[in-house]
Amino acid sequence: MNMIGASNVNTNTLSVGAALEGGIDWVLKHNPGVGIVERTPNITVFECDDGYLNDIRGRHVQKEHVWQAITTSTSGQVPEGNVGAGVGMSSFSYKSGVGTSSRIVKNSLGTWTIGVLMVCNFGEREDLIIKGIPFGRMFPINAAPSNRNSNITIIATDAPLSYPQLKRLAKRPSLGLSRVGSISRWGSGDIDMAFSNYLWIHPHSKPQIIDSAKFLDPFIEAVVEASEEACLNALLQAETMVGVDYHVREKLPIEQIFTYLRNTKRL
Amino acid sequence: MNMIGASNVNTNTLSVGAALEGGIDWVLKHNPGVGIVERTPNITVFECDDGYLNDIRGRHVQKEHVWQAITTSTSGQVPEGNVGAGVGMSSFSYKSGVGTSSRIVKNSLGTWTIGVLMVCNFGEREDLIIKGIPFGRMFPINAAPSNRNSNITIIATDAPLSYPQLKRLAKRPSLGLSRVGSISRWGSGDIDMAFSNYLWIHPHSKPQIIDSAKFLDPFIEAVVEASEEACLNALLQAETMVGVDYHVREKLPIEQIFTYLRNTKRL
Amino acid sequence: MNMIGASNVNTNTLSVGAALEGGIDWVLKHNPGVGIVERTPNITVFECDDGYLNDIRGRHVQKEHVWQAITTSTSGQVPEGNVGAGVGMSSFSYKSGVGTSSRIVKNSLGTWTIGVLMVCNFGEREDLIIKGIPFGRMFPINAAPSNRNSNITIIATDAPLSYPQLKRLAKRPSLGLSRVGSISRWGSGDIDMAFSNYLWIHPHSKPQIIDSAKFLDPFIEAVVEASEEACLNALLQAETMVGVDYHVREKLPIEQIFTYLRNTKRL
Amino acid sequence: MNMIGASNVNTNTLSVGAALEGGIDWVLKHNPGVGIVERTPNITVFECDDGYLNDIRGRHVQKEHVWQAITTSTSGQVPEGNVGAGVGMSSFSYKSGVGTSSRIVKNSLGTWTIGVLMVCNFGEREDLIIKGIPFGRMFPINAAPSNRNSNITIIATDAPLSYPQLKRLAKRPSLGLSRVGSISRWGSGDIDMAFSNYLWIHPHSKPQIIDSAKFLDPFIEAVVEASEEACLNALLQAETMVGVDYHVREKLPIEQIFTYLRNTKRL
Repeated sequence: MNMIGASNVNTNTLSVGAALEGGIDWVLKHNPGVGIVERTPNITVFECDDGYLNDIRGRHVQKEHVWQAITTSTSGQVPEGNVGAGVGMSSFSYKSGVGTSSRIVKNSLGTWTIGVLMVCNFGEREDLIIKGIPFGRMFPINAAPSNRNSNITIIATDAPLSYPQLKRLAKRPSLGLSRVGSISRWGSGDIDMAFSNYLWIHPHSKPQIIDSAKFLDPFIEAVVEASEEACLNALLQAETMVGVDYHVREKLPIEQIFTYLRNTKRL
Repeated sequence: MNMIGASNVNTNTLSVGAALEGGIDWVLKHNPGVGIVERTPNITVFECDDGYLNDIRGRHVQKEHVWQAITTSTSGQVPEGNVGAGVGMSSFSYKSGVGTSSRIVKNSLGTWTIGVLMVCNFGEREDLIIKGIPFGRMFPINAAPSNRNSNITIIATDAPLSYPQLKRLAKRPSLGLSRVGSISRWGSGDIDMAFSNYLWIHPHSKPQIIDSAKFLDPFIEAVVEASEEACLNALLQAETMVGVDYHVREKLPIEQIFTYLRNTKRL
Repeated sequence: MNMIGASNVNTNTLSVGAALEGGIDWVLKHNPGVGIVERTPNITVFECDDGYLNDIRGRHVQKEHVWQAITTSTSGQVPEGNVGAGVGMSSFSYKSGVGTSSRIVKNSLGTWTIGVLMVCNFGEREDLIIKGIPFGRMFPINAAPSNRNSNITIIATDAPLSYPQLKRLAKRPSLGLSRVGSISRWGSGDIDMAFSNYLWIHPHSKPQIIDSAKFLDPFIEAVVEASEEACLNALLQAETMVGVDYHVREKLPIEQIFTYLRNTKRL
Repeated sequence: MNMIGASNVNTNTLSVGAALEGGIDWVLKHNPGVGIVERTPNITVFECDDGYLNDIRGRHVQKEHVWQAITTSTSGQVPEGNVGAGVGMSSFSYKSGVGTSSRIVKNSLGTWTIGVLMVCNFGEREDLIIKGIPFGRMFPINAAPSNRNSNITIIATDAPLSYPQLKRLAKRPSLGLSRVGSISRWGSGDIDMAFSNYLWIHPHSKPQIIDSAKFLDPFIEAVVEASEEACLNALLQAETMVGVDYHVREKLPIEQIFTYLRNTKRL
């Protein structure tokens, strides 16, 4: 009987307790020995404050929603924009949400995937940059209050990366976010986690660790690129939302942006 | 209307969600503006694994217990031993629990109190040291399984200490614990927090920060001493307990220890 | 007699000892009490490896050069490009060097300056980005070996910023560098330092600390912007160099870059 | 031709530059490819302030002394007390110096040695504790000025420990020092380094990493015990010294201490 899953859940600030309860319920249900013959799990729950759009005091996320999320999870394309923890999130005073992106890395040991999932909830309007164009300063109409909160990034890979290598990767998403305009303002912070599901077999067998630049650099490059792209996807896939107290977050003026990018040969 | 309380709750590993829910309930109840016109709170909940004595899978701590703990809290002497989060905790294969200790520091700015509250749940039997005597190796009869988990320390003061000063103090309890035998074994870790309830008035008024050795050293000394003492109190005030599945943790053989200390002029 | 200067010197990897000797010489000369009635100084010397262009084994930097640098220092415009520690440095397989940039921040307490000085020595050719344009992948002719080393950033300000505020600023240059293409590859690291020369008067007087978003955010913004600009200046001001063993680093093809930027309305 | 040695040198604060120069000289001499076809070395030099006994401004340590130390180094018993970097050091207002201690750890992979070398230079007189007895408060005669500086610890092993495991060990010496009275006062800090000379063969071969409590715990225990012992040895092996300006540091009143320990059954 083995521990199933080092679960991670993302949600809003006031629903951390409920999400944690749901995660623990699920782990206990599937691991009868936990707390008796096995050690107890520490489930990670990450949060951003979506109080502008969400009736956050209502705490509408219940522990049942965690079960529902786990049991209905499927492989294939990951939904983006106004979904899950992303429903109430905003970036640069525009509607934001969940975004994702991934890369394939090939090396002498095999072919590996590394993916990034983000919940984006940061940035003043004037910070926004897309492909080097400071759109945030070019579209000054949007007057919604800014959002100086935080950003969640989960990095997942199947590559045989060690703990120090994963720790290093977990510090790289900020470099991708910077290219979309993040300056990590005062007030909150970025939360980043990286894990590998590579099956480290019995320690006496032959692990394939190669702790070198040649091996790690493509993964670093992948994380920076995928982080920029995941944040852009969170913005581009989000839809205008009317939230609590008739608060509104407009979606990005995508047509205007693409037209500008085409006109300046950036697309 | 101001935020009331940066609450901290200590509990067992699987009750963190429930404790968090209780803490959030209480903060929302007393702060109608939170999540609407004020930012949202992050409540800290610390945990140790008490699964040897506690039916930890039963998750008997409910959010109502947090309310109860807050509303029935009083000033005066702090209960120690098998109380609160300490009920199921063990150290050095003996029954342990909650311990506390404090010091008065006088300086040119006034007279200040600094207190330490611990939930002790660490240590192999042979690690135990009291006043320099390696009792853990002298009383080999106790054969209960060891407990290589963690230790929670909360440092509270009314002194005008800055953020870097408090951060420094929060790293000192390990030095006190070492004198009771802690070697910070593999497997878990110490969780330490320090805060001051000194009323920092409007920034333009006259804060009394003195960032010097003369000012900070007595507080460092106080934290190390009080941490050693709080851990000893957690052990000395605990009572033998029969827990889940008839697991037993004996209390320390206090008479034997005191007799030995008296015979060797250590008391 | 007071300690004069917490000196900082930047140089190549094998000249750290000589630079340190020079710095200590200078501090001792101007502080007769150091080591007798005053505590001893710790001078910071930062380094990058410029071994491709520099005869680094020759260790041509002598402690006299530190004296010379201090005694000939003037106010006014800061030389950039192939000067000082920048002489042998390279970025993105092009010649790089020293770059600088600064911002003015005005707030209710006064008008403040914050400046960034960099020694740039990092980046694969294909990483280079300028104003969002991936020039590194567009100019593939340059075949010089890459340089995966490090970057030094010194942030200086006259604003009344506290230790935690400065520490936060010292983590922001990477965000500016990312916009020029940095992905912080494996192999070395960025070295960042921030200090303020604001005269914190006697602690019992009235310090003007305002620890809030409104106060710190403009400085964060300034550091990210100035870091990007300082790195660009290091590249734009550098000149082609023939170094040891006839190794060559070309300067950036500036005309081509500016033409492209103008054609795509980025200038 | 391979890089020989990640050298470490310990010295006084103002001789760091000279020691570094000596270390670089030596590495370059023995590695003709460094800085040409190989990367450049970063030599670590650690320091404590011995300005009370040492004419520290005289900077009497020259780079030649590093060569001398390397070329005359032998295996066998390590000299302790007033030797090397320890000549001018003091602890608890008494003469201190260099101390060392080691342990053998046996496990299923083999038999390993782990050793600790310290340069002790910290502590107020009243802090001193030996085997739980607060001698610092019992022998109040010594009125020499205190020494609130720092402590250097080098941990060396031949065991196959990974980077995270060694990093964890490098945080444990403070726990041993605490048992001799260290409370890590304001003003300076402990410098700790851990390394293994285990020959990690080609990554595709069979490394013997076992990342578990069973494997690491005995090393943790060894480091805490050896750190306490090394600090005691530094004190017990030191001799009274008359230094610069006739400053005197007495050696510990060893006879009195041993008599007391014997009388209280602590020896």
